[in-house]
Amino acid sequence: MNKVRVAVFGASGYAGEELLRILLRHPNVEITAITSRKNAGEPVSTVFPRYTGSGLTFVAPETEKIAANCDAAILALPHGLAAEFALPLLKAGVKVFDISADFRLKSLAKYLEYYKTEHPAPELLKTAVYGLPERYREDIKTADLIACPGCYPTSSILPTAPLLAAGLVSTRNIIVSSCSGVTGAGRKVDLPYIYPECNESLRAYGVVGHRHTPEIEQEMAFAAGVDELSINFIPHLAPMSRGINSTIIMEAMPGCTLEKIAAAYEAAYANEQFVRVLPAKRTSDTKYVFMTNCCEIGFNLDPRTNKVILTSCIDNLTKGASGQAVQCLNIRFGLDEAAGLI
Amino acid sequence: MNKVRVAVFGASGYAGEELLRILLRHPNVEITAITSRKNAGEPVSTVFPRYTGSGLTFVAPETEKIAANCDAAILALPHGLAAEFALPLLKAGVKVFDISADFRLKSLAKYLEYYKTEHPAPELLKTAVYGLPERYREDIKTADLIACPGCYPTSSILPTAPLLAAGLVSTRNIIVSSCSGVTGAGRKVDLPYIYPECNESLRAYGVVGHRHTPEIEQEMAFAAGVDELSINFIPHLAPMSRGINSTIIMEAMPGCTLEKIAAAYEAAYANEQFVRVLPAKRTSDTKYVFMTNCCEIGFNLDPRTNKVILTSCIDNLTKGASGQAVQCLNIRFGLDEAAGLI
Amino acid sequence: MNKVRVAVFGASGYAGEELLRILLRHPNVEITAITSRKNAGEPVSTVFPRYTGSGLTFVAPETEKIAANCDAAILALPHGLAAEFALPLLKAGVKVFDISADFRLKSLAKYLEYYKTEHPAPELLKTAVYGLPERYREDIKTADLIACPGCYPTSSILPTAPLLAAGLVSTRNIIVSSCSGVTGAGRKVDLPYIYPECNESLRAYGVVGHRHTPEIEQEMAFAAGVDELSINFIPHLAPMSRGINSTIIMEAMPGCTLEKIAAAYEAAYANEQFVRVLPAKRTSDTKYVFMTNCCEIGFNLDPRTNKVILTSCIDNLTKGASGQAVQCLNIRFGLDEAAGLI
Amino acid sequence: MNKVRVAVFGASGYAGEELLRILLRHPNVEITAITSRKNAGEPVSTVFPRYTGSGLTFVAPETEKIAANCDAAILALPHGLAAEFALPLLKAGVKVFDISADFRLKSLAKYLEYYKTEHPAPELLKTAVYGLPERYREDIKTADLIACPGCYPTSSILPTAPLLAAGLVSTRNIIVSSCSGVTGAGRKVDLPYIYPECNESLRAYGVVGHRHTPEIEQEMAFAAGVDELSINFIPHLAPMSRGINSTIIMEAMPGCTLEKIAAAYEAAYANEQFVRVLPAKRTSDTKYVFMTNCCEIGFNLDPRTNKVILTSCIDNLTKGASGQAVQCLNIRFGLDEAAGLI
Repeated sequence: MNKVRVAVFGASGYAGEELLRILLRHPNVEITAITSRKNAGEPVSTVFPRYTGSGLTFVAPETEKIAANCDAAILALPHGLAAEFALPLLKAGVKVFDISADFRLKSLAKYLEYYKTEHPAPELLKTAVYGLPERYREDIKTADLIACPGCYPTSSILPTAPLLAAGLVSTRNIIVSSCSGVTGAGRKVDLPYIYPECNESLRAYGVVGHRHTPEIEQEMAFAAGVDELSINFIPHLAPMSRGINSTIIMEAMPGCTLEKIAAAYEAAYANEQFVRVLPAKRTSDTKYVFMTNCCEIGFNLDPRTNKVILTSCIDNLTKGASGQAVQCLNIRFGLDEAAGLI
Repeated sequence: MNKVRVAVFGASGYAGEELLRILLRHPNVEITAITSRKNAGEPVSTVFPRYTGSGLTFVAPETEKIAANCDAAILALPHGLAAEFALPLLKAGVKVFDISADFRLKSLAKYLEYYKTEHPAPELLKTAVYGLPERYREDIKTADLIACPGCYPTSSILPTAPLLAAGLVSTRNIIVSSCSGVTGAGRKVDLPYIYPECNESLRAYGVVGHRHTPEIEQEMAFAAGVDELSINFIPHLAPMSRGINSTIIMEAMPGCTLEKIAAAYEAAYANEQFVRVLPAKRTSDTKYVFMTNCCEIGFNLDPRTNKVILTSCIDNLTKGASGQAVQCLNIRFGLDEAAGLI
Repeated sequence: MNKVRVAVFGASGYAGEELLRILLRHPNVEITAITSRKNAGEPVSTVFPRYTGSGLTFVAPETEKIAANCDAAILALPHGLAAEFALPLLKAGVKVFDISADFRLKSLAKYLEYYKTEHPAPELLKTAVYGLPERYREDIKTADLIACPGCYPTSSILPTAPLLAAGLVSTRNIIVSSCSGVTGAGRKVDLPYIYPECNESLRAYGVVGHRHTPEIEQEMAFAAGVDELSINFIPHLAPMSRGINSTIIMEAMPGCTLEKIAAAYEAAYANEQFVRVLPAKRTSDTKYVFMTNCCEIGFNLDPRTNKVILTSCIDNLTKGASGQAVQCLNIRFGLDEAAGLI
Repeated sequence: MNKVRVAVFGASGYAGEELLRILLRHPNVEITAITSRKNAGEPVSTVFPRYTGSGLTFVAPETEKIAANCDAAILALPHGLAAEFALPLLKAGVKVFDISADFRLKSLAKYLEYYKTEHPAPELLKTAVYGLPERYREDIKTADLIACPGCYPTSSILPTAPLLAAGLVSTRNIIVSSCSGVTGAGRKVDLPYIYPECNESLRAYGVVGHRHTPEIEQEMAFAAGVDELSINFIPHLAPMSRGINSTIIMEAMPGCTLEKIAAAYEAAYANEQFVRVLPAKRTSDTKYVFMTNCCEIGFNLDPRTNKVILTSCIDNLTKGASGQAVQCLNIRFGLDEAAGLI
């Protein structure tokens, strides 16, 4: 079988580094280009010494030239910029896997409200498929543009969707409190992210109006079969490099039991190799998903308050970004879904 | 003025280490004994090299002998054990500041339910004063037995009590989601606490029925003026040595605004030197309270979901344990409340 | 091609965890047994949730039974214990890859001096091959018993051997100062290794007489072509999970230049995919070898003091233990040397 | 007694933060100005929320105005800049405690060689006193300009000077290998210092020609009573916020024993409250000096190689910078040498 030729746009950040880690061991993929405006012309080793052996060199993001030589493009670009590249790539027949937020929201209004900028390609919002394989595998198989979910949304949607769909929990009073490692902020050179400012520091941020909120709400509403719902999403920065733990508190509906929750997960994820549902009453741990493409889910029920308490851990750079993009790519090109991801 | 003579029981753990740090620089205190069963007879330097210069030596916890030579005893002992020491010390006229959970709950039934053991001195539950100066300063001034709050409760009660008292938030649907550094588990030699198991690990534990729950509920109910209330308290372990961040989500009552919240805090804490309320919409950070006796509080209001979102940070070993005990001791003995704590 | 059937003895420690990570993605290996005295009968998921999907179960280390069903055994056992297992396995025709120190030293006297215990199988010291592929690849191809080097020795021998062999550096006044992550101590539950004792702690230990010293000296002497040499090896514990940085100071011999050093490395390692020699004057970094099987080497020359300064980084669990064992196994069984290691 | 009025120049970095921590609890000091070009006009709480209660405000570094209202100035400014401020301050009669490197070297030539810039006030190099109290206490008592040692030099000079002075060790083949926490790089916003680049990273840098080298050599030569000596100084960055561990390897002179080393230390440091010499064969640990002004020294002797091995730990921001400056200030103004430092 011919290898899938893949170009990585924006390869010099942490999502790019993780993409290279995965793709370089992928048996069915050939990397045909890695782009970086800043590092164009330099060997990959100047940024990531660990990939010295790959012989790769950063190139400028000349879309046309690159498109001529690839089947798939993974965009690890900032929000806003991704859409600009997606259009010409799609026109050239390249399948696009976007890690940015540009195509995740179905509602243009929500995009404008949360991102406070014009959308460069609003017509694509409708056709883009949300790249969460455990929810949209069939759609991904034939999609041209796949909008890979954000890290927080992945960790929030996977544990809640089956319970919302089964009517075991209410759509009201949903709380998602998440802690993320510092790579979640990207490879950003800014005072709050230097080591002494992060070490021994745990802090919430964006507790009202974080940009991942509408994306989580959209997918929870889809799962619940309602038009709209509102949640509280509260992100935190924790002193670690990778990993997200989301703790989710929901109101149990009458008749909800641990057994029914387990059954709903069984129905949804029994055949999913990248979702691990723990036995009842246990809690997930970021270290058990570190550098894996897995989402680990724990569940419990507090009879005193009638709340379902979920814990959900992913590696923000793998299942929360690059691993998920490759999982989607595997599905789209008919490869083993786990290729490169074990 | 004569110095207050202080004995520290259980001085070889992290709360003990922190007590020594504070007391050794305290201008009005003399340490007359530090006890440790395991290290009795050894100089303090074998456990804490940093205190070599103090010349202190661990002794066995012979209560009578020690009581004869101290005005105050701070108990940094495990739950259950503290009560055994408190009785003879009180009988000998020593003021007792207990860092354990033995005397925090007013309800014996709750103690039995959560600690699953007989209480060694139930008659003292009624007379013990809850050692949270910002709430019970007047009672502390004359108390014989002061039950210092736990670390999680301190971080939860200080930000919520003024809002509950002012009727700005509901007593229903209260969520407290907290992250603690690893010293919160004590100086415990157990697999989950070795470095490689904690590093890059963020995990919830005890998400239903954690022992600090009834203590938080008791004090929230007192503040709200209700008989009982139920909350969800969800603790997490985070990869840091010290610090607690509690993120608290409450239902806003009609008419609640950021201004009214600020006013309630102003009324409660304007003169409190160990509570720092941030301007509206900002969030607290564990690093800003690291090795201080301060509680830093942030508040926000989500108009979409009508929730008040509070963030509250303390150092679990200082304001969450040893610092608070010394603050109480200062109050009880008429010293400058901040002595040793700046 | 048939898969190589591999048994892992002592699979519940960190080296075992890393072996499973590598072997589960190895295309040419089948894991036929994983042993653990303590966890026998339990699914692997009770110790390592991340391997839940593997379906593996720990068994008791019944050598005969296991030997009947494997071609190779990797021993991740404590020193002393490994030798006991090696004997019956070898007798049964199983190729043995030992990660312990039991067969690394050629000199029985040195073993007794440093390990202070009788050797359980001294006759094997002579036939065991030192499992450092970059030095002994040909011997490994036909060996029955392969003694994989320790983590500190690997990081010390790889950068120094080519320079000693080329006569560019003296055999006198060699200093090896190394810093290791905490997994280097094993999955050991002991006070010095709990998180708060390691965080913000950097400390030397065993600065005279560390057990890895004779092993490093033996291999340096072989490389230099001398009977004996003595070094100072000074290990440190650093607050990280994985990784070793060894900084090595050696006396330059007359005529030694950066160019000649580079040439010596080129001659030795040009075709080695797991050794990365940096351009002159750069320094290696543990993060660039994190979770890889690579050794990254930097070199410099101080003209004022006439010293060669080398820096050398490996991941102690991969190239320093499990990865190296698998690299040897690949060589021994004629597989792609990098299989499972990319 | 009147309080010493102190101005802090460059108060918004990590040394500034540490100075404020110390000075705010100092019983004999009044802070009359804190300067910051970038933050002039802002309350201290915008940069350091923990000092909100101090009521301090950053001002522009207008030397004349500030000099009129202070007895002492502590300069926590970048190299080069410090000298510019020192001149007018000294002219105004203010005692100057400089934490930068501007006045540490006696040799102008060495300054030019290592700092590659003209010296703004070379005439002061001769009169400045090196602010290491354990070596120059008498000179400090009457000095106008005190050049506080760097962090690496402090950790290197204190353990070696007594041994060099006693002739127990050779002046040849001295190796200083040091590991520093990330605050050692200052509050610098640069890619190598963001959290994910430092976490799990241990790396040497500047292994030839680091700027602290001539300073260490100067003081070692003074101690040894020789004109010049050359060492290898090899700094590393370790994943922690604070702390330096220096491991020092020296050649033992004939007759050198552990007892003689202990005696030399006893003679030098028996009355020093900020030097803690461990019993023979033990090693120092950064965590035991964390946030203290202490230098902890361990020593050992390797009879096989005839090397003395020293380990020496300080907190780089306290004894390595701000604490040392305050210790000097206390000496200069006749205060208790430990005031503010316990």
